Amino acid sequence: MDNVLAELDQVLSARKQADADSSYVASLHHKGLNKILEKVGEECTETILAAKDAEHSGDNSELIYETADLWFHSLVALSHLGEDSSAVLAELQRRFDLSGLVEKASRGQSK
Amino acid sequence: MDNVLAELDQVLSARKQADADSSYVASLHHKGLNKILEKVGEECTETILAAKDAEHSGDNSELIYETADLWFHSLVALSHLGEDSSAVLAELQRRFDLSGLVEKASRGQSK
Amino acid sequence: MDNVLAELDQVLSARKQADADSSYVASLHHKGLNKILEKVGEECTETILAAKDAEHSGDNSELIYETADLWFHSLVALSHLGEDSSAVLAELQRRFDLSGLVEKASRGQSK
Amino acid sequence: MDNVLAELDQVLSARKQADADSSYVASLHHKGLNKILEKVGEECTETILAAKDAEHSGDNSELIYETADLWFHSLVALSHLGEDSSAVLAELQRRFDLSGLVEKASRGQSK
Repeated sequence: MDNVLAELDQVLSARKQADADSSYVASLHHKGLNKILEKVGEECTETILAAKDAEHSGDNSELIYETADLWFHSLVALSHLGEDSSAVLAELQRRFDLSGLVEKASRGQSK
Repeated sequence: MDNVLAELDQVLSARKQADADSSYVASLHHKGLNKILEKVGEECTETILAAKDAEHSGDNSELIYETADLWFHSLVALSHLGEDSSAVLAELQRRFDLSGLVEKASRGQSK
Repeated sequence: MDNVLAELDQVLSARKQADADSSYVASLHHKGLNKILEKVGEECTETILAAKDAEHSGDNSELIYETADLWFHSLVALSHLGEDSSAVLAELQRRFDLSGLVEKASRGQSK
Repeated sequence: MDNVLAELDQVLSARKQADADSSYVASLHHKGLNKILEKVGEECTETILAAKDAEHSGDNSELIYETADLWFHSLVALSHLGEDSSAVLAELQRRFDLSGLVEKASRGQSK
């Protein structure tokens, strides 16, 4: 599962360059930052509603789906401004003093 | 960078069990789902504001910081309801038909 | 301008009873509370974006339009749950110790 | 109830000019537009959560309280950018083709 965000970064980077009508992501970039941020806000509200419904139903599937939507659109916003998931993960790593041991190991191997 | 979310899941899981006054995360769980979701909403607004400011300033540091806050609090919400980042990553992998090949390749190298 | 909200309450109340395909408001009620609250969240994000753009452009027209959308959809949410604008105005009046002098005067006239 | 927003506009206008430590509204203006918009976003999330809780509990008091908070902070945002409630009410009146007849009638009575 570990490389999903890194692979998604590559997909998002490729689609950012593409024609507006070639994909959903390309169309979002073409519409501009406000449209992307509107989607971030929408998915946040849908995540909150899904969590409230999960609280009562015990079914988390909608919450997982909407959280994926929220993360995805926040990655599109980052991509629009020239960033990707690595900057967010580095900030989380710094903040929680996470070891990232596996990463360092695999980097060591590539030398 | 790849294991940051998996490590963070472990940190969040441990803090969910802890005394309310032992950490910020423990206190959020003690206050309940609404308080956690209020934080998700707050961080989403701050992410949107940071993106708009980055659009004008060219400085993405606040955007990265706030996106990390947004992801972090959405992970606390997932944790509160018994999920973690793996469910979100699996949904993104499924949706974008990501191979996870790079991950598997690097794991292969470490054997 | 003063009775706009009271008149809007009447419009919203009538449309709540109507067929789902008779109006936008009727269709929102038919889709249910989550759909209405998604719209409240969307309009809030659009209000925030419009305010940020107004900060730079000096043009408030989009901000006014989006704030009207936000208030409107929050009135639909209130209507869905059996309330209207009068409860919100009473809360604001109580909180800010507003006199409501004109209201009292006009009530006095109707006796 | 009708003049509550007009009176509140006057309160907000006065507090916008005041020292930062003289009132909550004055301190918000001093902190700037982002802080005001963060509050708009927070109150929107709290309104959504209150509506979801009201759906299950049947108690609308929290929803009314949070909607008042949402409207109030959106009025502070308008005030920060030089507008007030009259522009929003005019937009709603235009959009719904509201007559304002009752208002005109009661004004007629007071002459």
